[in-house]
Amino acid sequence: MANLHGMKMVTVICEELVRPVVERLLKEVGAHGFTVFPVEGAGQQGSRRGEMSEFRNVQFEVIVQPAVAEKLMERLQSEYFPRYTMIAYEQDVRVLRREKF
Amino acid sequence: MANLHGMKMVTVICEELVRPVVERLLKEVGAHGFTVFPVEGAGQQGSRRGEMSEFRNVQFEVIVQPAVAEKLMERLQSEYFPRYTMIAYEQDVRVLRREKF
Amino acid sequence: MANLHGMKMVTVICEELVRPVVERLLKEVGAHGFTVFPVEGAGQQGSRRGEMSEFRNVQFEVIVQPAVAEKLMERLQSEYFPRYTMIAYEQDVRVLRREKF
Repeated sequence: MANLHGMKMVTVICEELVRPVVERLLKEVGAHGFTVFPVEGAGQQGSRRGEMSEFRNVQFEVIVQPAVAEKLMERLQSEYFPRYTMIAYEQDVRVLRREKF
Repeated sequence: MANLHGMKMVTVICEELVRPVVERLLKEVGAHGFTVFPVEGAGQQGSRRGEMSEFRNVQFEVIVQPAVAEKLMERLQSEYFPRYTMIAYEQDVRVLRREKF
Repeated sequence: MANLHGMKMVTVICEELVRPVVERLLKEVGAHGFTVFPVEGAGQQGSRRGEMSEFRNVQFEVIVQPAVAEKLMERLQSEYFPRYTMIAYEQDVRVLRREKF
């Protein structure tokens, strides 16, 4: 049997310019690694219904223990969401572990 | 506690040329935003077993309420799958909300 | 109702040079297709705490039956993890099926 371990994957989508800010936060909360890749983001902005603007964004994916995910989400909500345009969400993942038991 | 909200993430993978068609559909079903990025897709096509062709595709990710996800999947199945080569799947995500309660 | 089918999505992140190795494995275990895209990976390496190196990686996403996911994870663990720097994880997805019932 493969040795799978329940973890949380947190995805953060932000403007390219904010990338170093998010990288620093990920290190501060104790993430051991992450991936990041460019995406185009489209979203409704302003008052006109049905119109979407497109942006150059980056998408971070980081796999962490549940307690780290909670700490990361709390800091995003209280410190970063008020200042930056960001999306953040969490999913359950089963991560393959290197170690054998 | 971070203010997380259960939503659906729908992923649609299609040929690059079909991108504007999917963008229009996402707006029609009421998505407020999405991300899109290029991927290479490899899949078995035709009759030769074990052979895969590679394609330039795009991958859409859109986060919506469950009712919007259902409407999107129904329209993909009835209107788009018969005409285009596409993959679509749905996952549960917990999205961080800007608003505080 | 959209015709959704419970499957597993396996994500494998590896160095770009290892890409053909993973592609061969995916075919061997019976995957019918996959997507792959470039990502930057950052991870702690070596002895210095808090330092992350960045790498050019690729991220594979493959949707398979649970039995195929298990076989893929087992082979990654026993044959590939000892030789390559890789991350692999599994998620539940509900895939839209082309066929109608």
